[in-house]
This record gives sequence, structure tokens and C-alpha cells, in this order.
Amino acid sequence: MPKIDVCLTPELLPLFQLDGKIVVVIDILRATSCMVTGLAHGISEILPVATLEESASYGQKGYITAAERNGLKMEGFDLDNSPFSYMDPVLQGKKICVTTTNGTKAIILSAKARKVVIGSFLNLKSVCDYLYIRGLDVILLCAGWKGQVNSEDTLFAGAITAYLKDSFQIGNDSALISRDLYELHKGRMFEYLKDTSHFQRLNRLNIQKDIEFCLQNSIYDCLPRLENNVIIS
Amino acid sequence: MPKIDVCLTPELLPLFQLDGKIVVVIDILRATSCMVTGLAHGISEILPVATLEESASYGQKGYITAAERNGLKMEGFDLDNSPFSYMDPVLQGKKICVTTTNGTKAIILSAKARKVVIGSFLNLKSVCDYLYIRGLDVILLCAGWKGQVNSEDTLFAGAITAYLKDSFQIGNDSALISRDLYELHKGRMFEYLKDTSHFQRLNRLNIQKDIEFCLQNSIYDCLPRLENNVIIS
Repeated sequence: MPKIDVCLTPELLPLFQLDGKIVVVIDILRATSCMVTGLAHGISEILPVATLEESASYGQKGYITAAERNGLKMEGFDLDNSPFSYMDPVLQGKKICVTTTNGTKAIILSAKARKVVIGSFLNLKSVCDYLYIRGLDVILLCAGWKGQVNSEDTLFAGAITAYLKDSFQIGNDSALISRDLYELHKGRMFEYLKDTSHFQRLNRLNIQKDIEFCLQNSIYDCLPRLENNVIIS
Repeated sequence: MPKIDVCLTPELLPLFQLDGKIVVVIDILRATSCMVTGLAHGISEILPVATLEESASYGQKGYITAAERNGLKMEGFDLDNSPFSYMDPVLQGKKICVTTTNGTKAIILSAKARKVVIGSFLNLKSVCDYLYIRGLDVILLCAGWKGQVNSEDTLFAGAITAYLKDSFQIGNDSALISRDLYELHKGRMFEYLKDTSHFQRLNRLNIQKDIEFCLQNSIYDCLPRLENNVIIS
């Protein structure tokens, strides 16, 4: 039986062996939720980059640029980090270059894995179906917040672990802890997240609507994957 | 109100500011449980060191030596890593030099904090009373297993966070996650830990009796603290 490991923050990724495994990158609030939304709404590809400078330089090559730091849109870029911005019909068929505080870093660190897929509650079922069919060992990589563990990414890692519990072994204690957390809070995720650090950080930015959107289960049948350093669906 | 942060593994400690804070080092299976047991049974002091070589060199200076790697006692040292070994009356009044896979490393990394105390279920109440009286910000440092998060240390971090919930704020999401885990499993910790990685690792070494011992709540009124790099009570 293949196994699922959870890596609670990118800081711990050096402890994991990526070769031959599928990595699911998780940044629920909001990078991976935005990517899933954008690709489901017709964006052609998303290029994740580490720095603001790189993102800006792709703007000169015809990309739409998106840049977020500390939850805020950066001056001089086209898009913020709200999933609603990624639904804009003018983006259909366009290429986007994205840099965010945590999520794009996690994607770039995962590139050595056999496959890298983008996970969010919005495409939970598609991710689980894909992992089940492939049947390879899986690492669920939580993007966290500036290296720290966060509740919303851990909760989603737990959701995958719970959904696949009959087909995958638990690989490490972080997977067990995540699954417990999800089972405990799955009926009231929004209420639970109100007590968490990132919710409070984002709530000051008036994005409660974004958070409610990002917690919807499997509204998109969409599986973003990293291919040659670009995310396509 | 002072706050409690949980650091789920020493790999993440560089993300925390230690100045002016109390760090509680946690290695339930079995380093910190052994230290509490030994000091409660009359050992005069415990010197934590990082390497087998250092521990061996203290053997020549009159210390009793203890060395564990991967759950096993190392050849040529006096003591293994079982709390029962630390109860031996011949150790009363003696100095012990200890090196373990995870616990001693965590203690050494914490030395810059204002105070470093040694926590285990065996002295849970003493630790909580101390933290309550001091009223400073606290970091609960889980020793984990070779950098990975483990369930038993997270559970104990959650126990402290739960006991002190009316007098301390939750500092980070790891504290919230730990507290949930403890509330979920406090009535059946031994059963819960049977599914975890370290239990399975240790169970192969026939130390079920050690684990049952280490999960007892507040049987010692003992508060080991690091003073000038030595642990005394």
C-alpha cells in the first residue's frame, strides 16, 4: 500500500525524499486556491516565481503578473491574491506569472518530485482521485506562513489523508495529526479558523468572503500540475 | 496576558525569538521523562551533551554516562534511556552525562532562552505551576524524531496549553493544533500512540512498560531547570 506523509512547512522539506513521489502543494489562503480557480476559469498557464523582480520581468514578456506579500497586492502588478480576481473573463487564455509569500516558494522547492500537483478544498475530489489512480507515495506539502505551521493547510492535508485512508498508509505522525484535526473540525472549518493566526491576519484585510470561498469542497473538477516549471490543468 | 507558542520540532526553532522567554523542552519517549525521573530519585545533576565522544569524555571525569541512539543504549556507556534505569538507588547524589538522539540536542539549542525547563507528563503539574507563577511568554519545544514532528511530544505540548488556557494566549497555530490533539486523545493516550511512528519503532525494542510509565500524569513534584548548561532540580 502506498503511503502518505505530511510535511507541515517547507522548512521541513529537506527531511523528505522526493524522488519518485507525488507532492501536493497546499496554500489554502490563498495561493493554491487562486491557481485552481484561475485554471478552472480558463487561464492557460501559471508560472510560479520566487521574487517580485522575476514576476515583473515576465510582465514585459506578455504575462499577466500577480504578486502578493503579507496578504497584500504589490504595487505595479496586475492581480492580487483573491480567488475572485482569478475569475475575471479577461484572463481567459492568458498566461499568469505569480509570486506569493509562501505558496510559490513551496511549489518551486517541490520541483524535484516525480509529479507536483496543486491542491485546495476547491478541487479536493480531483486531487484525491488522481492520487488514488496513480497509487504512488505522496507528500502533502503545507506552505504554512513564513516557515511556521498553519491550521488551514494542515486541515486540508488532513482532508486528503482522511479521504484516502482505505487506500494509503499513514507515513508519519504529521499525517496522523492532520487527519485528527480535519475529523475534529470538518463540520465547522470556518468557525475553527477564526481562532487561527492567519485568519486574524487576513481578517484585517477584509477578505472574509475570500476565506469562505476557499473552504468550499470540490466545486472545481480541475487538477493543476507542474510541467516544465509551469502549472497547467 | 503572556502567550504560549509551540515549536513542533527543533528544525523550526530558528523561526522563534528566545530572548526573555521560558522554553520547555519536551522529549516524552524518553529523554525528558528520564531526566525528571532521575532527578526525582536523587540524581544530583544531569549534563546534556551533543555527541557520544563528549559523553564518553565525561565518564573519565567521574560522571555516570548515558547514551542512546535510535532508541538503543550505546556500547561502553553506563545507562540506557529507560526511566526505570534512572531510579537505581546507586545513582543517588551522582552526576550523569547524557546524550540522546533528539532530546539533548533540543536542550542545547534552547540555552539562549531566559529559562529552560524540562517537561514530561511525569511532572506536568510542576511545569504548569512554574509557568503560571513566572507569567512570561513560553515556547514549548518538542524534540521530535530526527527533525520530524512526533505525536507524543505534540500531545504533551497540548496538555500544557490546555492546562494553562485561562492564563495564557495561544501564540501560534501549532499551539492550537497541539491543544486540539490533547483534548481529543487525553483519555486514551496509550491507545492513540500505538498508531504512531515512534511507538512502533520503540515497540520493537520491547519498551511498552517504559511508554506506560512515561504517560503517567504528575507523579513527581520536580522541576528540572538548565543552570549554567547543567540540569538540576
